[in-house]
Amino acid sequence: MRTSTEFIRSLEDGRTIYYRGKRIENINEHQILRIAALHAAKLFDYPNRIYEDEKFGQISKFFKIPKSKEDLLDRHELIYKTTMFCNGIFNISQAIGSDALFALTIISRKLDKKYGTDYSKRIEKYYEEVAKKDLTLAVAQTDVKGDRSKRPSEQIDPDMYLHVVKVDSNGITVKGAKAHTTQSIVADEIIVIPTRAMRSEEKDFSIAFAVPTNAKGLKMYCRPVDEVEGNTSSVLSKKDYEIETITVFDNVFVPWDRVFLFREYEFAGALATLFATFHRFTAISYRSATANLYLGAAIKAAEANGVLKEKHVRDDILEIVMYKEIMKISALAAAIMPRIDEEVMIPNPIYTNIGKLYSNSRFVEVIKALVDVSGGIIGTMPAQEDFESEQGQELEKYLRGALDGRKRIEIMKLAKELASSSYAGYMITLMAHAEGSIEASKLELERSYDYGEALELVEKVIS
Amino acid sequence: MRTSTEFIRSLEDGRTIYYRGKRIENINEHQILRIAALHAAKLFDYPNRIYEDEKFGQISKFFKIPKSKEDLLDRHELIYKTTMFCNGIFNISQAIGSDALFALTIISRKLDKKYGTDYSKRIEKYYEEVAKKDLTLAVAQTDVKGDRSKRPSEQIDPDMYLHVVKVDSNGITVKGAKAHTTQSIVADEIIVIPTRAMRSEEKDFSIAFAVPTNAKGLKMYCRPVDEVEGNTSSVLSKKDYEIETITVFDNVFVPWDRVFLFREYEFAGALATLFATFHRFTAISYRSATANLYLGAAIKAAEANGVLKEKHVRDDILEIVMYKEIMKISALAAAIMPRIDEEVMIPNPIYTNIGKLYSNSRFVEVIKALVDVSGGIIGTMPAQEDFESEQGQELEKYLRGALDGRKRIEIMKLAKELASSSYAGYMITLMAHAEGSIEASKLELERSYDYGEALELVEKVIS
Amino acid sequence: MRTSTEFIRSLEDGRTIYYRGKRIENINEHQILRIAALHAAKLFDYPNRIYEDEKFGQISKFFKIPKSKEDLLDRHELIYKTTMFCNGIFNISQAIGSDALFALTIISRKLDKKYGTDYSKRIEKYYEEVAKKDLTLAVAQTDVKGDRSKRPSEQIDPDMYLHVVKVDSNGITVKGAKAHTTQSIVADEIIVIPTRAMRSEEKDFSIAFAVPTNAKGLKMYCRPVDEVEGNTSSVLSKKDYEIETITVFDNVFVPWDRVFLFREYEFAGALATLFATFHRFTAISYRSATANLYLGAAIKAAEANGVLKEKHVRDDILEIVMYKEIMKISALAAAIMPRIDEEVMIPNPIYTNIGKLYSNSRFVEVIKALVDVSGGIIGTMPAQEDFESEQGQELEKYLRGALDGRKRIEIMKLAKELASSSYAGYMITLMAHAEGSIEASKLELERSYDYGEALELVEKVIS
Amino acid sequence: MRTSTEFIRSLEDGRTIYYRGKRIENINEHQILRIAALHAAKLFDYPNRIYEDEKFGQISKFFKIPKSKEDLLDRHELIYKTTMFCNGIFNISQAIGSDALFALTIISRKLDKKYGTDYSKRIEKYYEEVAKKDLTLAVAQTDVKGDRSKRPSEQIDPDMYLHVVKVDSNGITVKGAKAHTTQSIVADEIIVIPTRAMRSEEKDFSIAFAVPTNAKGLKMYCRPVDEVEGNTSSVLSKKDYEIETITVFDNVFVPWDRVFLFREYEFAGALATLFATFHRFTAISYRSATANLYLGAAIKAAEANGVLKEKHVRDDILEIVMYKEIMKISALAAAIMPRIDEEVMIPNPIYTNIGKLYSNSRFVEVIKALVDVSGGIIGTMPAQEDFESEQGQELEKYLRGALDGRKRIEIMKLAKELASSSYAGYMITLMAHAEGSIEASKLELERSYDYGEALELVEKVIS
Repeated sequence: MRTSTEFIRSLEDGRTIYYRGKRIENINEHQILRIAALHAAKLFDYPNRIYEDEKFGQISKFFKIPKSKEDLLDRHELIYKTTMFCNGIFNISQAIGSDALFALTIISRKLDKKYGTDYSKRIEKYYEEVAKKDLTLAVAQTDVKGDRSKRPSEQIDPDMYLHVVKVDSNGITVKGAKAHTTQSIVADEIIVIPTRAMRSEEKDFSIAFAVPTNAKGLKMYCRPVDEVEGNTSSVLSKKDYEIETITVFDNVFVPWDRVFLFREYEFAGALATLFATFHRFTAISYRSATANLYLGAAIKAAEANGVLKEKHVRDDILEIVMYKEIMKISALAAAIMPRIDEEVMIPNPIYTNIGKLYSNSRFVEVIKALVDVSGGIIGTMPAQEDFESEQGQELEKYLRGALDGRKRIEIMKLAKELASSSYAGYMITLMAHAEGSIEASKLELERSYDYGEALELVEKVIS
Repeated sequence: MRTSTEFIRSLEDGRTIYYRGKRIENINEHQILRIAALHAAKLFDYPNRIYEDEKFGQISKFFKIPKSKEDLLDRHELIYKTTMFCNGIFNISQAIGSDALFALTIISRKLDKKYGTDYSKRIEKYYEEVAKKDLTLAVAQTDVKGDRSKRPSEQIDPDMYLHVVKVDSNGITVKGAKAHTTQSIVADEIIVIPTRAMRSEEKDFSIAFAVPTNAKGLKMYCRPVDEVEGNTSSVLSKKDYEIETITVFDNVFVPWDRVFLFREYEFAGALATLFATFHRFTAISYRSATANLYLGAAIKAAEANGVLKEKHVRDDILEIVMYKEIMKISALAAAIMPRIDEEVMIPNPIYTNIGKLYSNSRFVEVIKALVDVSGGIIGTMPAQEDFESEQGQELEKYLRGALDGRKRIEIMKLAKELASSSYAGYMITLMAHAEGSIEASKLELERSYDYGEALELVEKVIS
Repeated sequence: MRTSTEFIRSLEDGRTIYYRGKRIENINEHQILRIAALHAAKLFDYPNRIYEDEKFGQISKFFKIPKSKEDLLDRHELIYKTTMFCNGIFNISQAIGSDALFALTIISRKLDKKYGTDYSKRIEKYYEEVAKKDLTLAVAQTDVKGDRSKRPSEQIDPDMYLHVVKVDSNGITVKGAKAHTTQSIVADEIIVIPTRAMRSEEKDFSIAFAVPTNAKGLKMYCRPVDEVEGNTSSVLSKKDYEIETITVFDNVFVPWDRVFLFREYEFAGALATLFATFHRFTAISYRSATANLYLGAAIKAAEANGVLKEKHVRDDILEIVMYKEIMKISALAAAIMPRIDEEVMIPNPIYTNIGKLYSNSRFVEVIKALVDVSGGIIGTMPAQEDFESEQGQELEKYLRGALDGRKRIEIMKLAKELASSSYAGYMITLMAHAEGSIEASKLELERSYDYGEALELVEKVIS
Repeated sequence: MRTSTEFIRSLEDGRTIYYRGKRIENINEHQILRIAALHAAKLFDYPNRIYEDEKFGQISKFFKIPKSKEDLLDRHELIYKTTMFCNGIFNISQAIGSDALFALTIISRKLDKKYGTDYSKRIEKYYEEVAKKDLTLAVAQTDVKGDRSKRPSEQIDPDMYLHVVKVDSNGITVKGAKAHTTQSIVADEIIVIPTRAMRSEEKDFSIAFAVPTNAKGLKMYCRPVDEVEGNTSSVLSKKDYEIETITVFDNVFVPWDRVFLFREYEFAGALATLFATFHRFTAISYRSATANLYLGAAIKAAEANGVLKEKHVRDDILEIVMYKEIMKISALAAAIMPRIDEEVMIPNPIYTNIGKLYSNSRFVEVIKALVDVSGGIIGTMPAQEDFESEQGQELEKYLRGALDGRKRIEIMKLAKELASSSYAGYMITLMAHAEGSIEASKLELERSYDYGEALELVEKVIS
């Protein structure tokens, strides 16, 4: 199978990446961006990541189409454990792509049934290529959207939602931009799907497809990695982080066999939602793992400060436990109460969104808990350069707690990174918006919830 | 099998019940208390409640000792569905007793291993009798406790915790009182277990046993059923409610074969906790069912008022959905990630307590949501007597909403009962304290949580 | 000045009261309703309630039109202290009426300026009569409203909002019903004002006026006083409570000199809002007093249980302190930062609504805190009849805590009443909806808030 | 009076500052630190900052000892408005020092009364010097503390709390370190006071004094200003920020006339608390101003996104309004209900701590609100360098919302800075810990609250 070294080398393919105003020719030579690449590469070093698929032979477990509850439980564990393997940082490289492929598999079958198209064959062929080549994938869903009070077709600039600008016998040409595309710069391919339900006048916005990351006209604008460059005492981010881009499709050509939805507007919403369900299941799975960073840091900070037995500290720790375990139990419940569609097991959308909504709403409580436990020092401690200078010894003397200064500083550096730094700010935003905002989770819950049981009960009671 | 009619008749056995200052000779003839009896009796009418046990033959599903994940999932469903069958009101009659029997089964085996005693044989025999006779059981755990800042052995009055006062060759005699014993007055038997861990000086408080409800010296003091007697427009409580007693053991004799723990103080804590885990699994199971009352009432009230599309109303409804489903998913996760001890499957204590703690802390949000949706009318509407009087028509005219007045009044009567009446007050207390308070859930979480995974991760990151 | 005895006697004037389906001929002879009357009467026994008005001579302080910050601070204190005087229960009898009179004073002046009408003279005359006769007043504002998704003019039944049905040279005749009219049955007069802003097609709904409580066609339907009749161990409610009615105007005639708004629809909203501002200032004032019941009960319950030093108990107590004091400080700030209109000082509407919104949203936390401190016993304790029976002694023995049983029971009876009874349910509804719901407070905040300062700052920063 | 230019120049006095591992010889030449200096200097440009003191003549309003409610209201306004003057960033330069001087004024009088000392004369003299020279002051209170479970006298390293190491006829020599000393590097003087109550065995830790910032042995270790150096798109922090240091006293000599407490351990707690009360009043005053940044940014972000009318967005905005105004009303109430001691008006400590506790607990809600309104873009947007590059135009095209791209980016850069950057992390920590943590506010509330009123009420009710 593909190795991490092979993966790393394959990144040097001319893809168009901008970072801090400059074109980055070789990501592997860039001191900051290479961390994102090495993080992605870790996936290939994860033990036992391969299984024998009856159709495709030896492939990554991420690409195993869920056919049973056990498959979903295994997938949860895979995402949880790969996150733990990568120091508590989610590794999206084959997770999000497989989420999209599962959704496309289902939708393509429905499309073919309705229209006699050959989408499912295209998807199968693409799936095979991805699985056999052991590719990493990014998914670009969220359009830049422009004025949120207007629909795609009502925007001043039609490019606010990705759309078809040309069609010919070879394929289609698309234009527009997607926001928040995670790890696109280290993906082999980018899968594009619609961000929302569409109407008949929005056929040209109703498209799904895949292109290689180095496709002509594809440009990726990275966010600045302030958690590394802007915090010299960062510990975690120097080892692992994921990066997002604004991904511009400047007249990108897509051949027909990579086109998975084309103007069938009435399937845009279903595809968007189905992907979201798979991907939110992924989200609650990695978030329960990521919560361990906050939990472990809170306990260690409490020990370092000598306050582990304080009731308010214990309450803070339980707040984080609560967060971690509600992520976990919503994933477990979603796995064992799935829905099935076109022979694919879909994680229970209600339980998935319950976990997701809890996460969106309550992550600030996790931050607050760690801040409360750690003390103001995580906001006001000197820089890494100070600790490494000849003044370092004096700082170590004065920063001792129930542990010696050196140890306490190590812990407080992590606590600062997690709760009082650019990483903390980034995480608050991520936990509120990634994989869908609070309102998106609410809408999906309202849409898919079956109120019948409750209404029948009440009718029985009052009758 | 036992029928509801047989059960009802069997209650007339001379048990000592006090209600509102009077000795109640025959519960079935008491207009209010008979509702509690009829509620208990419904269990015997629940369809498909019997299964073929390989050891005991045809017995109630409640008494099936969980041996697998499926058994725990089935038990969750049994409790959920019997609650729905009883109009959203938990039916404790064989649930709590089996929770105690499961815990006693495990502990008795441990006791025998350590001391060569025959407790497990006693339990098995008792278990067989209970199962074959299809008995209903109450469990008396919480002592009246006296001064909470003092241990059992430190109380001014030693009777604050139930204890042995006499021992002879036939059995033991006990004295004390237990609080909050649910449905004791309609139980065939009462199982008594310790309320907490005990120390060596507290051997006489370290006891577990069972007695029939009409045992000599056993007195049951009911709470007033204000939800029926104090709210003439009540709808739900007139159909189903459960009642608690202060249960006084005034020198009650227990024969040796009904004694399940006797001065082995170091097992008192384990027994208390193990029962609590089983019973909290029961709690989160019935609470997810009970939440349907609030959910259905909120939707119907919103419809009746014409406000179902208002965003704040939808948020209120989602708050209740969140509550219901976090109960549900914690139960499901607890079932599929059990612990096993002495060949019995124990629901995962972490997930069980996560659900329990959420319930304890957040039920007031459910009340608040229903109050917000329903409007002030549930606090200020006239009485049932008014609606039934010749003025009723005028009230119906003026209480119409998006529905006609009669229908809206029916809905508002239930909304009032659930959220703005003595039942609401009772429920807030129940949800905060029944099956263990907020602090009890926190303590159990702290005690049983494995922080190792989080600590290892953080050590890996900072090393 | 008028005495409480005189007031009580004056209630026997033939007013039409219904309670539990029966016409109540003499309120003073009704065991339950007379408590509401005696509560109202207490106002006349409140020490130093009279001041020397320069215009009207010796009158009640409630009727002093606020002309300065000190007047508003004094009014806050008056409401706070009369509430404390009445055992923590608000005494609305001259408070709400004066709130309405202040608003009518302002609006009448504006009306006269615009239309050359004589409303201000009518109000002055009425004001003089009320003040000199020392009357008690109810205010009927909230219409029964019907379908909340429709405007007054769109209802199926036009009587869903009170409206004019006949006009002649003597006055107007009105029809409709108002909900939640507090203490109407013991008021001398009822002032009626619009519930919301009106449009040109809603002129007939745009009315304000006053009628004596025994006006022909006026019918008052009381809510059942379950906190007394439905809870035999109630302590507080047997001393003081206030009652609401659905108040039906069945073709009630109002002479012109008592009509204060007549079809000037564009003033309906301003009058509704202005009254709401005065009355919410009253609300936060009495709520800070009422909170003392919960605060004192929580401390005493904690002492009785022996848990006063527990951290979670201390946090519970602080939650109540927080509630009480945010009510207090919002009232103080509203008083010292008033707005002035037509020479009348209006409490700052922003600060008033900030306090109000906190109260609406957070009162359940107060309930939850008291429940947590008190323990499950407030849900399951036997009835007052039990304590008074010959079994009472046994119950006292077993209900002792860190205090003896008798004392602890006294405290727990109050804790139950406040947090786990029909009174608790009623209070939750009251605190959420009385004087305007959560959404009403939000709307008013949004409407009246000046965002300019914040926007200017941000423009300065980003420019 | 002193000008900002004079102030800036005076900073070049050889003080010992370390930043990122290097000794900074001249702060005014340091690109980052000079921003902190220029921020401090703005105070001297604030209009109308001078008043005529009857004792000292023309001095800064910050140094006006509060003698009336109006003085406290004026002080609140002064802090609010200077914060607004400095772009919403608190200007501590004369605020914290005067808070300390007020507390020392009171305590010195008490000390003199008890011991016949001349502390009040020393303070007066120092006060005069500070006021007449128009000095800026830092206050160093929080010791580095070591093991928080141990008292000062129990620490392994005695230097964990600042203490006297030498005493002679000229003065004392002190050793230790203080954490979180705000704006020390741009203060003329540092006032040192104890961090907590002390016992008789802790006399050497019971000291208060003042030294010039360039005192021999005084070393200041700055936190890194990541909000400027680590976020190239920062807008606010490039204009204004305040910096904290770990302030090491390495055998610093203090002459007797600058010693304000010397081993009178029983006054250490009172001094610490009194300063905290004055300073928390300052805190709630500036925090209500700072909240405008979040409020204005949320409104502008909502406009830019086209979502201002969405209900959840409006709720977010109201959450920030609530925060801002509870800060404001607690300050107003604290000012008009002061306590008086030694002829100095002290802001009401209850109301001050109520505001403080709300701020500590709820600031994360403000962050969450702004994140929710702004969208994920504040976490994933490209860097300032990108916007300034030749690709900037393409980014502007795709980042348009309801406003054009350039304007929306300007707004989103601020939203990112406030809610999703190192500044956000810093603010969360600041709001939780600065001027005392959540627990510190709770302790002070518990200590100073008068429960008598509530207890009397309850006793009246249950008697």
